[in-house]
Amino acid sequence: MSIREALNWRYATKKMNGEKVPQEKVDQIIAAAHLAPTSSGLQPFKVIVVSNPEWKEKIKAIAYGQAQITDCSHLLIFAAWDNYTEERVRGVYAHANKERGLPDSANADFVNSMVANFTSMSPEQSFTHAAKQAYIGFGVAITEAAVLKVDATPMEGFDATKLDELLDLKSLGLRSTTLLPLGYRDEAGDWLVKLKKVRTPLADFLIEYK
Amino acid sequence: MSIREALNWRYATKKMNGEKVPQEKVDQIIAAAHLAPTSSGLQPFKVIVVSNPEWKEKIKAIAYGQAQITDCSHLLIFAAWDNYTEERVRGVYAHANKERGLPDSANADFVNSMVANFTSMSPEQSFTHAAKQAYIGFGVAITEAAVLKVDATPMEGFDATKLDELLDLKSLGLRSTTLLPLGYRDEAGDWLVKLKKVRTPLADFLIEYK
Repeated sequence: MSIREALNWRYATKKMNGEKVPQEKVDQIIAAAHLAPTSSGLQPFKVIVVSNPEWKEKIKAIAYGQAQITDCSHLLIFAAWDNYTEERVRGVYAHANKERGLPDSANADFVNSMVANFTSMSPEQSFTHAAKQAYIGFGVAITEAAVLKVDATPMEGFDATKLDELLDLKSLGLRSTTLLPLGYRDEAGDWLVKLKKVRTPLADFLIEYK
Repeated sequence: MSIREALNWRYATKKMNGEKVPQEKVDQIIAAAHLAPTSSGLQPFKVIVVSNPEWKEKIKAIAYGQAQITDCSHLLIFAAWDNYTEERVRGVYAHANKERGLPDSANADFVNSMVANFTSMSPEQSFTHAAKQAYIGFGVAITEAAVLKVDATPMEGFDATKLDELLDLKSLGLRSTTLLPLGYRDEAGDWLVKLKKVRTPLADFLIEYK
Protein backbone atom coordinates (compact mmCIF):
# COMPACT_ATOMS: atom_id res chain seq x y z
CA MET A 1 0.00 0.00 0.00
CA SER A 2 1.40 3.43 -0.91
CA ILE A 3 1.68 6.12 1.75
CA ARG A 4 -1.09 8.07 0.04
CA GLU A 5 -3.44 5.08 0.13
CA ALA A 6 -2.44 4.35 3.72
CA LEU A 7 -3.08 7.93 4.86
CA ASN A 8 -6.46 7.87 3.16
CA TRP A 9 -7.27 4.55 4.85
CA ARG A 10 -6.28 5.67 8.35
CA TYR A 11 -8.38 7.82 10.66
CA ALA A 12 -8.27 8.70 14.35
CA THR A 13 -9.83 5.43 15.48
CA LYS A 14 -12.43 6.04 18.17
CA LYS A 15 -13.35 2.43 18.90
CA MET A 16 -10.91 -0.46 18.85
CA ASN A 17 -11.84 -4.16 19.04
CA GLY A 18 -9.21 -5.38 21.50
CA GLU A 19 -7.38 -7.58 18.96
CA LYS A 20 -3.61 -7.88 19.47
CA VAL A 21 -1.21 -6.31 16.99
CA PRO A 22 1.56 -8.82 16.17
CA GLN A 23 4.81 -7.95 17.90
CA GLU A 24 6.57 -7.80 14.53
CA LYS A 25 4.33 -4.92 13.40
CA VAL A 26 4.72 -3.08 16.71
CA ASP A 27 8.48 -3.42 16.29
CA GLN A 28 8.28 -1.99 12.76
CA ILE A 29 6.27 1.01 13.97
CA ILE A 30 8.78 1.67 16.77
CA ALA A 31 11.66 1.22 14.31
CA ALA A 32 10.12 3.91 12.08
CA ALA A 33 9.96 6.38 14.99
CA HIS A 34 13.51 5.40 15.93
CA LEU A 35 14.76 6.11 12.40
CA ALA A 36 12.94 9.45 12.11
CA PRO A 37 15.18 12.47 11.58
CA THR A 38 15.63 14.98 14.40
CA SER A 39 17.40 18.29 14.86
CA SER A 40 21.17 17.75 14.61
CA GLY A 41 20.55 14.03 15.07
CA LEU A 42 19.99 14.40 18.82
CA GLN A 43 16.88 12.16 19.00
CA PRO A 44 15.67 13.97 22.11
CA PHE A 45 12.74 11.66 22.80
CA LYS A 46 11.86 8.11 23.76
CA VAL A 47 8.93 5.83 23.08
CA ILE A 48 7.26 4.08 26.00
CA VAL A 49 5.24 1.00 25.01
CA VAL A 50 2.48 -0.05 27.36
CA SER A 51 0.81 -3.43 26.83
CA ASN A 52 0.15 -4.20 30.50
CA PRO A 53 -3.63 -3.94 31.20
CA GLU A 54 -3.25 -2.47 34.69
CA TRP A 55 -0.99 0.31 33.47
CA LYS A 56 -3.39 1.01 30.61
CA GLU A 57 -6.24 1.40 33.12
CA LYS A 58 -4.19 3.85 35.18
CA ILE A 59 -3.34 5.88 32.09
CA LYS A 60 -6.92 5.87 30.82
CA ALA A 61 -7.98 7.50 34.10
CA ILE A 62 -5.77 10.52 33.37
CA ALA A 63 -6.72 10.63 29.68
CA TYR A 64 -10.35 11.58 30.23
CA GLY A 65 -11.42 7.93 30.18
CA GLN A 66 -10.86 7.52 26.45
CA ALA A 67 -11.64 3.89 25.63
CA GLN A 68 -8.88 3.42 23.05
CA ILE A 69 -6.29 3.45 25.85
CA THR A 70 -7.61 0.15 27.20
CA ASP A 71 -9.16 -1.24 23.98
CA CYS A 72 -5.89 -0.87 22.11
CA SER A 73 -3.27 -3.57 21.79
CA HIS A 74 -0.20 -1.44 22.55
CA LEU A 75 -0.17 2.14 23.77
CA LEU A 76 2.81 4.20 22.62
CA ILE A 77 3.77 7.24 24.66
CA PHE A 78 6.11 9.74 23.03
CA ALA A 79 8.17 11.49 25.72
CA ALA A 80 10.68 14.24 25.01
CA TRP A 81 13.77 15.32 26.91
CA ASP A 82 12.88 17.90 29.55
CA ASN A 83 16.10 19.81 28.84
CA TYR A 84 19.18 19.88 26.65
CA THR A 85 22.22 19.36 28.86
CA GLU A 86 25.90 19.26 27.98
CA GLU A 87 26.05 15.62 29.07
CA ARG A 88 23.18 14.60 26.82
CA VAL A 89 24.44 16.46 23.76
CA ARG A 90 28.01 15.17 24.16
CA GLY A 91 26.68 11.66 24.78
CA VAL A 92 24.87 11.56 21.43
CA TYR A 93 27.92 12.61 19.43
CA ALA A 94 30.31 10.39 21.41
CA HIS A 95 28.06 7.43 20.56
CA ALA A 96 27.94 8.44 16.88
CA ASN A 97 31.73 8.80 16.72
CA LYS A 98 32.17 5.37 18.31
CA GLU A 99 29.78 3.79 15.80
CA ARG A 100 31.63 5.50 12.96
CA GLY A 101 35.07 4.57 14.23
CA LEU A 102 36.04 8.23 14.65
CA PRO A 103 37.98 9.77 17.54
CA ASP A 104 36.13 12.54 19.43
CA SER A 105 38.81 14.93 18.21
CA ALA A 106 37.43 14.49 14.66
CA ASN A 107 34.50 16.85 15.31
CA ALA A 108 35.28 18.51 18.63
CA ASP A 109 34.60 22.04 17.32
CA PHE A 110 31.23 20.98 15.91
CA VAL A 111 30.26 19.25 19.15
CA ASN A 112 31.33 22.26 21.23
CA SER A 113 29.17 24.53 19.08
CA MET A 114 26.20 22.16 19.42
CA VAL A 115 26.64 22.13 23.21
CA ALA A 116 26.76 25.92 23.23
CA ASN A 117 23.66 26.22 20.99
CA PHE A 118 21.47 23.70 22.73
CA THR A 119 22.36 24.59 26.32
CA SER A 120 21.65 28.28 25.63
CA MET A 121 17.92 27.50 25.68
CA SER A 122 15.84 27.66 28.86
CA PRO A 123 14.43 24.31 30.09
CA GLU A 124 11.01 25.27 28.71
CA GLN A 125 12.43 26.26 25.30
CA SER A 126 14.46 23.04 25.32
CA PHE A 127 11.43 20.91 26.03
CA THR A 128 9.36 22.65 23.34
CA HIS A 129 12.13 22.10 20.82
CA ALA A 130 12.59 18.46 21.84
CA ALA A 131 8.82 17.91 21.74
CA LYS A 132 8.74 19.12 18.12
CA GLN A 133 11.30 16.46 17.24
CA ALA A 134 9.10 13.88 18.97
CA TYR A 135 6.24 15.03 16.71
CA ILE A 136 8.35 14.17 13.65
CA GLY A 137 8.74 10.63 14.99
CA PHE A 138 5.05 10.59 15.88
CA GLY A 139 4.15 11.45 12.26
CA VAL A 140 6.49 8.80 10.91
CA ALA A 141 5.10 6.16 13.31
CA ILE A 142 1.50 7.00 12.36
CA THR A 143 2.44 6.63 8.68
CA GLU A 144 4.16 3.28 9.23
CA ALA A 145 1.19 1.98 11.26
CA ALA A 146 -1.18 2.91 8.41
CA VAL A 147 1.02 1.25 5.78
CA LEU A 148 0.95 -1.92 7.93
CA LYS A 149 -2.86 -1.61 8.23
CA VAL A 150 -2.63 -1.09 11.95
CA ASP A 151 -5.09 1.43 13.33
CA ALA A 152 -3.91 4.22 15.59
CA THR A 153 -5.33 7.21 17.41
CA PRO A 154 -3.05 10.23 17.65
CA MET A 155 -3.86 11.85 21.02
CA GLU A 156 -2.91 15.02 22.82
CA GLY A 157 -5.92 14.82 25.15
CA PHE A 158 -4.47 13.70 28.48
CA ASP A 159 -3.08 15.29 31.61
CA ALA A 160 0.63 15.33 30.82
CA THR A 161 1.65 16.42 34.33
CA LYS A 162 -0.20 13.49 35.89
CA LEU A 163 1.15 11.03 33.32
CA ASP A 164 4.69 12.23 33.99
CA GLU A 165 4.11 11.67 37.71
CA LEU A 166 2.53 8.24 37.19
CA LEU A 167 5.49 7.00 35.15
CA ASP A 168 8.05 9.01 37.15
CA LEU A 169 9.31 10.50 33.90
CA LYS A 170 11.08 13.30 35.76
CA SER A 171 13.63 10.81 37.06
CA LEU A 172 14.36 9.91 33.42
CA GLY A 173 14.58 13.56 32.36
CA LEU A 174 11.49 13.20 30.18
CA ARG A 175 8.06 14.78 29.75
CA SER A 176 5.20 13.14 27.86
CA THR A 177 4.04 14.77 24.63
CA THR A 178 1.57 12.50 22.79
CA LEU A 179 -0.13 9.12 22.96
CA LEU A 180 -0.62 6.63 20.14
CA PRO A 181 -2.84 3.62 20.89
CA LEU A 182 -2.30 0.88 18.29
CA GLY A 183 -4.94 -1.71 17.49
CA TYR A 184 -7.75 -2.53 15.11
CA ARG A 185 -10.93 -0.59 14.41
CA ASP A 186 -14.30 -1.83 15.57
CA GLU A 187 -16.16 -0.82 12.42
CA ALA A 188 -19.63 -1.33 13.88
CA GLY A 189 -18.93 0.63 17.07
CA ASP A 190 -17.01 3.57 15.64
CA TRP A 191 -18.95 6.68 14.62
CA LEU A 192 -15.98 8.35 12.94
CA VAL A 193 -15.13 5.57 10.48
CA LYS A 194 -18.40 6.25 8.66
CA LEU A 195 -17.61 9.92 8.00
CA LYS A 196 -15.84 11.11 4.89
CA LYS A 197 -12.22 12.13 5.43
CA VAL A 198 -11.98 15.88 4.94
CA ARG A 199 -8.93 18.07 4.46
CA THR A 200 -8.48 21.77 3.79
CA PRO A 201 -8.83 22.29 0.02
CA LEU A 202 -5.41 21.77 -1.52
CA ALA A 203 -5.63 25.24 -3.11
CA ASP A 204 -5.77 26.74 0.40
CA PHE A 205 -3.05 24.47 1.80
CA LEU A 206 -0.47 25.15 -0.89
CA ILE A 207 1.28 28.41 -1.80
CA GLU A 208 3.61 28.41 -4.80
CA TYR A 209 6.55 30.60 -5.81
CA LYS A 210 7.17 29.38 -9.36
CA MET B 1 10.57 0.25 -0.88
CA SER B 2 9.33 -0.20 2.69
CA ILE B 3 9.32 2.75 5.07
CA ARG B 4 12.11 1.14 7.07
CA GLU B 5 14.28 0.74 3.97
CA ALA B 6 13.42 4.28 2.89
CA LEU B 7 14.33 5.78 6.26
CA ASN B 8 17.62 3.90 6.24
CA TRP B 9 18.31 5.15 2.71
CA ARG B 10 17.58 8.79 3.46
CA TYR B 11 19.91 11.22 5.22
CA ALA B 12 20.03 14.97 5.67
CA THR B 13 21.46 15.65 2.23
CA LYS B 14 24.25 18.23 2.39
CA LYS B 15 24.98 18.50 -1.32
CA MET B 16 22.38 18.26 -4.07
CA ASN B 17 23.12 17.97 -7.78
CA GLY B 18 20.55 20.43 -9.14
CA GLU B 19 18.47 17.78 -10.96
CA LYS B 20 14.72 18.47 -11.12
CA VAL B 21 12.28 16.32 -9.17
CA PRO B 22 9.34 15.39 -11.43
CA GLN B 23 6.22 17.39 -10.58
CA GLU B 24 4.31 14.16 -9.95
CA LYS B 25 6.65 13.25 -7.11
CA VAL B 26 6.54 16.75 -5.63
CA ASP B 27 2.74 16.51 -5.73
CA GLN B 28 2.84 13.15 -3.91
CA ILE B 29 5.07 14.58 -1.17
CA ILE B 30 2.76 17.56 -0.71
CA ALA B 31 -0.27 15.24 -0.73
CA ALA B 32 1.30 13.25 2.11
CA ALA B 33 1.75 16.40 4.22
CA HIS B 34 -1.80 17.43 3.33
CA LEU B 35 -3.19 14.08 4.51
CA ALA B 36 -1.19 14.06 7.76
CA PRO B 37 -3.27 14.00 10.94
CA THR B 38 -3.43 17.10 13.13
CA SER B 39 -4.98 18.03 16.45
CA SER B 40 -8.78 17.95 16.14
CA GLY B 41 -8.36 17.95 12.37
CA LEU B 42 -7.58 21.67 12.27
CA GLN B 43 -4.60 21.43 9.87
CA PRO B 44 -3.12 24.64 11.25
CA PHE B 45 -0.31 24.90 8.73
CA LYS B 46 0.42 25.39 5.05
CA VAL B 47 3.18 24.31 2.71
CA ILE B 48 4.90 26.91 0.55
CA VAL B 49 6.68 25.48 -2.49
CA VAL B 50 9.50 27.53 -3.95
CA SER B 51 10.94 26.53 -7.32
CA ASN B 52 11.74 30.04 -8.53
CA PRO B 53 15.56 30.53 -8.55
CA GLU B 54 15.45 34.18 -7.50
CA TRP B 55 13.29 33.42 -4.47
CA LYS B 56 15.55 30.51 -3.57
CA GLU B 57 18.56 32.89 -3.61
CA LYS B 58 16.77 35.33 -1.31
CA ILE B 59 15.87 32.53 1.10
CA LYS B 60 19.38 31.07 1.04
CA ALA B 61 20.70 34.42 2.24
CA ILE B 62 18.62 34.18 5.42
CA ALA B 63 19.39 30.47 5.91
CA TYR B 64 23.09 30.92 6.61
CA GLY B 65 23.95 30.40 2.94
CA GLN B 66 23.17 26.67 2.98
CA ALA B 67 23.70 25.43 -0.56
CA GLN B 68 20.79 22.97 -0.59
CA ILE B 69 18.37 25.90 -0.76
CA THR B 70 19.55 26.80 -4.24
CA ASP B 71 20.84 23.36 -5.34
CA CYS B 72 17.51 21.73 -4.59
CA SER B 73 14.73 21.27 -7.09
CA HIS B 74 11.83 22.45 -4.92
CA LEU B 75 12.08 24.06 -1.51
CA LEU B 76 9.16 23.31 0.82
CA ILE B 77 8.48 25.74 3.66
CA PHE B 78 6.20 24.53 6.44
CA ALA B 79 4.40 27.52 7.98
CA ALA B 80 2.01 27.26 10.92
CA TRP B 81 -0.92 29.44 11.95
CA ASP B 82 0.25 32.29 14.14
CA ASN B 83 -2.87 31.98 16.29
CA TYR B 84 -6.06 30.00 16.78
CA THR B 85 -9.01 32.31 16.17
CA GLU B 86 -12.72 31.63 16.35
CA GLU B 87 -13.03 32.32 12.63
CA ARG B 88 -10.33 29.80 11.72
CA VAL B 89 -11.64 27.04 13.98
CA ARG B 90 -15.24 27.52 12.84
CA GLY B 91 -14.10 27.66 9.21
CA VAL B 92 -12.47 24.22 9.42
CA TYR B 93 -15.55 22.53 10.83
CA ALA B 94 -17.95 24.38 8.52
CA HIS B 95 -15.92 23.07 5.57
CA ALA B 96 -15.94 19.52 6.99
CA ASN B 97 -19.71 19.64 7.55
CA LYS B 98 -20.25 20.85 4.01
CA GLU B 99 -18.09 18.05 2.60
CA ARG B 100 -19.98 15.52 4.71
CA GLY B 101 -23.40 16.89 3.81
CA LEU B 102 -24.15 17.75 7.44
CA PRO B 103 -25.83 20.90 8.75
CA ASP B 104 -23.74 22.97 11.17
CA SER B 105 -26.33 22.17 13.83
CA ALA B 106 -25.15 18.54 13.72
CA ASN B 107 -22.07 19.26 15.86
CA ALA B 108 -22.59 22.80 17.16
CA ASP B 109 -21.77 21.84 20.77
CA PHE B 110 -18.55 20.15 19.70
CA VAL B 111 -17.53 23.12 17.57
CA ASN B 112 -18.30 25.56 20.37
CA SER B 113 -16.14 23.57 22.76
CA MET B 114 -13.30 23.48 20.22
CA VAL B 115 -13.53 27.26 19.78
CA ALA B 116 -13.42 27.71 23.55
CA ASN B 117 -10.44 25.34 23.93
CA PHE B 118 -8.32 26.67 21.13
CA THR B 119 -8.97 30.38 21.65
CA SER B 120 -8.08 30.07 25.34
CA MET B 121 -4.40 29.82 24.38
CA SER B 122 -2.16 32.88 24.06
CA PRO B 123 -0.88 33.63 20.53
CA GLU B 124 2.52 32.17 21.46
CA GLN B 125 0.98 28.99 22.91
CA SER B 126 -1.23 28.76 19.81
CA PHE B 127 1.71 29.05 17.45
CA THR B 128 3.73 26.47 19.39
CA HIS B 129 0.79 24.06 19.28
CA ALA B 130 0.19 24.69 15.58
CA ALA B 131 3.91 24.32 14.84
CA LYS B 132 3.87 20.86 16.46
CA GLN B 133 1.11 19.85 14.05
CA ALA B 134 3.26 21.13 11.18
CA TYR B 135 6.05 18.86 12.43
CA ILE B 136 3.75 15.85 12.04
CA GLY B 137 3.22 16.81 8.39
CA PHE B 138 6.94 17.47 8.07
CA GLY B 139 7.71 13.93 9.29
CA VAL B 140 5.15 12.43 6.93
CA ALA B 141 6.51 14.43 3.97
CA ILE B 142 10.10 13.38 4.72
CA THR B 143 8.95 9.75 4.82
CA GLU B 144 7.08 10.01 1.52
CA ALA B 145 10.06 11.70 -0.14
CA ALA B 146 12.33 8.84 0.99
CA VAL B 147 9.91 6.18 -0.25
CA LEU B 148 9.91 7.96 -3.63
CA LYS B 149 13.74 8.06 -3.58
CA VAL B 150 13.73 11.83 -3.49
CA ASP B 151 16.40 13.34 -1.26
CA ALA B 152 15.50 15.96 1.30
CA THR B 153 17.18 18.01 3.99
CA PRO B 154 15.09 18.74 7.09
CA MET B 155 16.17 22.19 8.26
CA GLU B 156 15.50 24.39 11.24
CA GLY B 157 18.59 26.49 10.62
CA PHE B 158 17.26 29.75 9.20
CA ASP B 159 16.13 33.13 10.49
CA ALA B 160 12.39 32.57 10.82
CA THR B 161 11.62 36.21 11.54
CA LYS B 162 13.38 37.34 8.37
CA LEU B 163 11.77 34.60 6.29
CA ASP B 164 8.34 35.59 7.59
CA GLU B 165 9.08 39.18 6.57
CA LEU B 166 10.43 38.20 3.15
CA LEU B 167 7.29 36.21 2.30
CA ASP B 168 4.97 38.56 4.21
CA LEU B 169 3.62 35.57 6.12
CA LYS B 170 2.13 37.84 8.78
CA SER B 171 -0.50 39.00 6.30
CA LEU B 172 -1.47 35.34 5.86
CA GLY B 173 -1.53 34.70 9.62
CA LEU B 174 1.41 32.32 9.32
CA ARG B 175 4.90 31.87 10.77
CA SER B 176 7.56 29.65 9.22
CA THR B 177 8.64 26.55 11.16
CA THR B 178 10.87 24.32 8.99
CA LEU B 179 12.39 24.03 5.52
CA LEU B 180 12.59 20.92 3.34
CA PRO B 181 14.67 21.21 0.16
CA LEU B 182 13.84 18.35 -2.23
CA GLY B 183 16.29 17.12 -4.84
CA TYR B 184 18.92 14.51 -5.52
CA ARG B 185 22.15 13.86 -3.68
CA ASP B 186 25.52 14.68 -5.22
CA GLU B 187 27.26 11.54 -3.95
CA ALA B 188 30.76 12.73 -4.82
CA GLY B 189 30.35 16.15 -3.21
CA ASP B 190 28.53 15.18 -0.01
CA TRP B 191 30.60 14.40 3.10
CA LEU B 192 27.64 13.09 5.09
CA VAL B 193 26.51 10.38 2.67
CA LYS B 194 29.72 8.48 3.39
CA LEU B 195 29.13 8.27 7.14
CA LYS B 196 27.25 5.41 8.77
CA LYS B 197 23.73 6.28 9.90
CA VAL B 198 23.67 6.23 13.69
CA ARG B 199 20.73 6.17 16.06
CA THR B 200 20.46 5.94 19.85
CA PRO B 201 20.65 2.24 20.78
CA LEU B 202 17.11 0.86 20.63
CA ALA B 203 17.46 -0.34 24.22
CA ASP B 204 17.86 3.30 25.31
CA PHE B 205 15.09 4.58 23.03
CA LEU B 206 12.42 2.14 24.14
CA ILE B 207 10.83 1.71 27.57
CA GLU B 208 8.35 -1.14 28.03
CA TYR B 209 5.49 -1.74 30.47
CA LYS B 210 4.63 -5.35 29.68
